[in-house]
Amino acid sequence: MTRIALAIDLGGTKIDAALIDADGRVLAEGRNRRPTGPEITPDGLHRAVTEVVSHALAHLPDGARFVGAGIGSAGPIDLQAGAIHPVNMPSVRGFALLEAVRDAVIASTGEFDPVVRLRHDGGCLALAESWLGAAAGARASLSLVVSTGVGGGVVLGGIPVGGASGNAGHLGQMHVGELTVEEIAAGPASVRWAQLQGWQGETGEDLATAAAAGDRVARAAIERSAKTVGQALADASSLLDLEVIAISGGFSNVADDYVDLVGAALREWAGLPYAQRTRVVRSALGGDGPIIGAGALVLRDA
Amino acid sequence: MTRIALAIDLGGTKIDAALIDADGRVLAEGRNRRPTGPEITPDGLHRAVTEVVSHALAHLPDGARFVGAGIGSAGPIDLQAGAIHPVNMPSVRGFALLEAVRDAVIASTGEFDPVVRLRHDGGCLALAESWLGAAAGARASLSLVVSTGVGGGVVLGGIPVGGASGNAGHLGQMHVGELTVEEIAAGPASVRWAQLQGWQGETGEDLATAAAAGDRVARAAIERSAKTVGQALADASSLLDLEVIAISGGFSNVADDYVDLVGAALREWAGLPYAQRTRVVRSALGGDGPIIGAGALVLRDA
Repeated sequence: MTRIALAIDLGGTKIDAALIDADGRVLAEGRNRRPTGPEITPDGLHRAVTEVVSHALAHLPDGARFVGAGIGSAGPIDLQAGAIHPVNMPSVRGFALLEAVRDAVIASTGEFDPVVRLRHDGGCLALAESWLGAAAGARASLSLVVSTGVGGGVVLGGIPVGGASGNAGHLGQMHVGELTVEEIAAGPASVRWAQLQGWQGETGEDLATAAAAGDRVARAAIERSAKTVGQALADASSLLDLEVIAISGGFSNVADDYVDLVGAALREWAGLPYAQRTRVVRSALGGDGPIIGAGALVLRDA
Repeated sequence: MTRIALAIDLGGTKIDAALIDADGRVLAEGRNRRPTGPEITPDGLHRAVTEVVSHALAHLPDGARFVGAGIGSAGPIDLQAGAIHPVNMPSVRGFALLEAVRDAVIASTGEFDPVVRLRHDGGCLALAESWLGAAAGARASLSLVVSTGVGGGVVLGGIPVGGASGNAGHLGQMHVGELTVEEIAAGPASVRWAQLQGWQGETGEDLATAAAAGDRVARAAIERSAKTVGQALADASSLLDLEVIAISGGFSNVADDYVDLVGAALREWAGLPYAQRTRVVRSALGGDGPIIGAGALVLRDA
């Protein structure tokens, strides 16, 4: 009997739901999303959760065994309370996401006590990369997104590291000098830095185009981002003895050699041989990592 | 029947062996040590291992059940090969410590295939603090030593984190600005910094005495060390969502408020509430942490 999980990915702009099978495939049927955004209210989020869950579960294939729901959410989260405290959606801080999903699952399936698990989205991404992606088979891996923010997750021995409250993996909050990695290396921060040097573009895509055309400031902004990420990852690898680091996120595509620049910076800043050996590679899952990982929360040991 | 482990702690100045019971008590009988030091050869280390193991095991109490040997070693180590690559003992890099201990255990006990486990000393310390010390009951903890170096280990869900090759926990290799934590905050580095400011003392103890007597440079050197450690721990807590951090090591006693200064710096540099909540406390085990943790490697799931 095919085992199927419901996976939910809640971010700052949208909430996605999909059905995931035991091989980690995202079923096209049932995948759906609703917008979120910085203004979303608890009632609005509750409605969006109910809608995406019931829509997805209406497409559960005949004869499939439903194993539960996994949720990846923008952080921070509160694992004990099953609640979220997203930085970018202030009105829904404290929202009981686990309970909202559980209620919607019960309403759709009639199950009495469904398995529902919550992690932050970076932890889900890392679990997916460790299961099916660039970190498959690694004893210790970190996966990160470089986009409008910088976030990630850690998987050790196949288990996503939650930490005390479920928030392990916030790599963007580590410091390089006085600033955080996110403040230096995220897409918008890199654009702003280039603009301060007199560059005229507006977006990360502009930065990519200009750098490819030989603009030195645009190229310098990209190198600054990659070197900052690599420097922080050197510290993470010294602390965690990582085998593989997988990089994804829109801004990591800003240059073909972005991942290589990160790897070179890691080797420059890592002090001990085991940390210098960490492989830095591009994600093998692209944008589907977080939702596949949300499914993996209930598929992998169900 | 009392369960007893052999515990071995190999450091840059000595190798210690002791018998540890199932409650984590270090038996006075059988505890013994040999010197090591930067000049030690593979033959010399092999002899020292054999001697401390056989001496300790000769004191195994009548009727005790021997559960195996746990080893904590100065790092880096190579968990897969069972070998050590200690920075401070260059001639014994690559030494097959696990095999040497196993051979000595077999010679003493006649057991055919004894359980023998290796971790670096920081990992053993962290396991002991998590078992019986300041981090007991914590879901995620880090324990560190501030001494002639800065090292430590991480325990998540009761399990010591090894990482890809067993070296997770090298907090002293993390950076604050251009330098590593160890280069700034260890005892000798702090003394050197004070001397460069014109201070006349020679040792960490001198620094403690001078600061207590009101010497401003000595006090500044101590604050510089604690702030650096706290700043790096803020990054570690952002990355790992730590519940408790336990501090030990000679230089952490340089001022009564050293641990509090570390905690204040952590709260200053941690960006998110979960990381600011991390408790920073003094070790509850003192110098016996690493050897108790080495015993715990085989006592806790044997």
